[in-house]
Amino acid sequence: MIQHPLHKLLQPASIAVAGASDNPHSSGFQFTNALIEYGYKGRIFPINPKSDRILNMPAYARVSDVPEPVDYVISCVPAAAALDLVKDCAAKGVKVVHLFTARFSETGRKEAADLERRVLEAARQGGVRIIGPNCMGLYAPRLGIAFSDALPKNFGNVGLISQSGQMAEEITRYGALRGVFFSRAISYGNALDLNECDFLEYLTEDKETEVILMYMEGIRSGQRFLSALKAAAAAKPVVVLKGGRGSSGRRAASSHTASMAGSHKMLSTLVAQAGAAMAGSAEELIDLAVIFLMAPPITGYGVGVAGGGGGASVLAADECEESGLEVVPLPDEIRAELKARGSAIWDWVGNPVDMSIRDSEAFTPGMMLELMAENKNFDLLIAIMSDPHHERQRDTTANQVLEHFNLDKLGQKPLLAVVANRPMGGAEYDHWAWKVMCEVRTKLIEAKIPFFPSMTRAASAAKKAADYYGKRGRGA
Amino acid sequence: MIQHPLHKLLQPASIAVAGASDNPHSSGFQFTNALIEYGYKGRIFPINPKSDRILNMPAYARVSDVPEPVDYVISCVPAAAALDLVKDCAAKGVKVVHLFTARFSETGRKEAADLERRVLEAARQGGVRIIGPNCMGLYAPRLGIAFSDALPKNFGNVGLISQSGQMAEEITRYGALRGVFFSRAISYGNALDLNECDFLEYLTEDKETEVILMYMEGIRSGQRFLSALKAAAAAKPVVVLKGGRGSSGRRAASSHTASMAGSHKMLSTLVAQAGAAMAGSAEELIDLAVIFLMAPPITGYGVGVAGGGGGASVLAADECEESGLEVVPLPDEIRAELKARGSAIWDWVGNPVDMSIRDSEAFTPGMMLELMAENKNFDLLIAIMSDPHHERQRDTTANQVLEHFNLDKLGQKPLLAVVANRPMGGAEYDHWAWKVMCEVRTKLIEAKIPFFPSMTRAASAAKKAADYYGKRGRGA
Repeated sequence: MIQHPLHKLLQPASIAVAGASDNPHSSGFQFTNALIEYGYKGRIFPINPKSDRILNMPAYARVSDVPEPVDYVISCVPAAAALDLVKDCAAKGVKVVHLFTARFSETGRKEAADLERRVLEAARQGGVRIIGPNCMGLYAPRLGIAFSDALPKNFGNVGLISQSGQMAEEITRYGALRGVFFSRAISYGNALDLNECDFLEYLTEDKETEVILMYMEGIRSGQRFLSALKAAAAAKPVVVLKGGRGSSGRRAASSHTASMAGSHKMLSTLVAQAGAAMAGSAEELIDLAVIFLMAPPITGYGVGVAGGGGGASVLAADECEESGLEVVPLPDEIRAELKARGSAIWDWVGNPVDMSIRDSEAFTPGMMLELMAENKNFDLLIAIMSDPHHERQRDTTANQVLEHFNLDKLGQKPLLAVVANRPMGGAEYDHWAWKVMCEVRTKLIEAKIPFFPSMTRAASAAKKAADYYGKRGRGA
Repeated sequence: MIQHPLHKLLQPASIAVAGASDNPHSSGFQFTNALIEYGYKGRIFPINPKSDRILNMPAYARVSDVPEPVDYVISCVPAAAALDLVKDCAAKGVKVVHLFTARFSETGRKEAADLERRVLEAARQGGVRIIGPNCMGLYAPRLGIAFSDALPKNFGNVGLISQSGQMAEEITRYGALRGVFFSRAISYGNALDLNECDFLEYLTEDKETEVILMYMEGIRSGQRFLSALKAAAAAKPVVVLKGGRGSSGRRAASSHTASMAGSHKMLSTLVAQAGAAMAGSAEELIDLAVIFLMAPPITGYGVGVAGGGGGASVLAADECEESGLEVVPLPDEIRAELKARGSAIWDWVGNPVDMSIRDSEAFTPGMMLELMAENKNFDLLIAIMSDPHHERQRDTTANQVLEHFNLDKLGQKPLLAVVANRPMGGAEYDHWAWKVMCEVRTKLIEAKIPFFPSMTRAASAAKKAADYYGKRGRGA
């Protein structure tokens, strides 16, 4: 297989930052500093006509003044200086210019759009590829490339293609809290040259990427995108979040990345045709990343639920069913087993298992999950992990919370956990129960068990994952 | 106006706990101890034939042995002893028996359902009203009555009627974290005698209750419920959450509270007819409590959004629109004002206000919210409050986060805040940004500004609140 050209282009041996600065509030500082902070192994060249040392490194007036080869340039110069910069980069033999530089076509102003077109022409003539403009560019933690000091330093196996830099930051930051780390993320803004299809084709082939996430506002070519998405979804799970679905969102997308957002219905159809998954929000995009990354393939819709009491069980049934899962009635063979074990509620207990009617200490959610894991009617299991909240539970440890669920006895059956999130104020910050649940989340990540803040979000992610694996199984 | 009979019945001057115990793991201990812990001012009488002192109080073998009047009895005795207890209570002149005692009709067993019927007959003959069976009963923090040590000790102005005890606990606990405190909550289980209509009529008249929340699995009489709900919704906001909406939920509701869950569509129609609001989940029930309790009436659907950058703004537009709000294009008069103030982005910036394109320090979300607050096109405002996450923001205080939003200059226009919740693991527990956002939440509660963990939840709550006020305005 011929390697995708971006594979090499996005592993630069040297990076110049045009507009680099010692002023910590400037973007020129932040991009340069992030390369140092994240341990970029290649050469770094600050470019600034007014300074010959920046961040303790020699600085140069122009890219073409750098005495060594420059593979990649991050541009923090104003829009008015971008055309000259691109021409200078072409002269120097630079392969990629990432234009953090903004205020082009997204402003809706004719002269800005004209300038953008001239930048593209200059890049094409000079053999330079453009990322952006109006974007944060590349985050590749394994290579020590980052565009902000807020990004996780750990790397993982999820790839992100995001038209928005803010979303790239939010998704990588919040993903990390759920155990989702990234092979690379690319924020590509106005998609003047390299666009979503290029990055998608690249990550489809990228061996370090197991799951692909996309946040996009516009599509440059529906036909090319469909074929790229088909190939991608056949190789690995792909989740698409579309910004600009309604009229106000399209208006916002136009002033954000100059995107012609097109019809959301068309994109939905296209994503479904390709066998990819569609997320409805940033939260759901991360939910789907978590489930695809951590859970074994979910091959059907039959769900067993245990751990909640009373009303929570009733609502869990509703929420699973409304999400498109099938809440399997407790099978006779499990009732027979419960009876054989001497349970007095063998005829009464159901699925979801209502823990408030338990008749003995031996009747745990884990026992029920184990029975459901062994039973062919269940394709996946969901454990409700409530926070301890009574005074008598004050010494509860995270391990004790988890022991109730027999996690190591559930074999390969997909298991999701619902761990409620508390919207805490200052007074609750130090509540012991919250600390315990933080530890529970850490241990769930270590055990590769995806957790979700609500039943609806767990069930909806499971449904979409089952759709994906079902389509892939049928060769979609 | 004649006072509702429950007003007096649920303010007992004395409470006996049948099955009281010194064993801290028993429910008899927990109910008795909670009365002491929460400062119940009336007389407490532990009842237990095997002990003459419990929790340092004189205990009696039977309720009829108590030498003083007993208004209210909490029953923790087994189902087999309940009939005798109710007869004894009738003989003593007890007015209300709360049967925590369970394992009646909800078991699906004929002999248990028969026993339940005989308990009801005995109560009717003896002039005793029954709460339950199979429920947690009354939480009235102002009176020092609580059914668990996990309930908030503060009281407030929200009333809760919940068929599930677990939900009553969850809603009061999680509500407190959002600034929602309760006048009283009633968990009523199988609704053998007193049912949702009785409690609804009572809370409609209750002066300490400004907002009514209901979690219900079955309806005893559709006709009576409709008329009670109409009267309630005309007096104050009422939010209904139904458990047992689908076939698996109905199955679960039947084994939980012996409810014939009926059709969800019928209940939805009925709630809409009555002009009440319907919640789809426990989370949404609390969201609606927060908005009705804290925000001024929302009288239209036009929304202005500020505080997010880039993709977050685009998605905010989509999520508001999909929730049924109208994302108003930025009016010309606001553009003119921005131009007059010298803003270089007056023609470019829109609604939602994309903070990533700000052109000066003076351009804050608060400035934009202020302009929208003064403009008649906007019925409500939503502020996106992100957590600080860059190293250079490390010293940010909660006040600094809030100062950006000019909260004290927005007049009476309803304002909601979106404050993201981080699903933290053990390693992130002490992150400085989380502490700041906890303080932000506390200050928002103090300022009576409802906050939500996502844009979708804020927008959906706003839409339903606007529906409610719109219907009430038209005299529904």
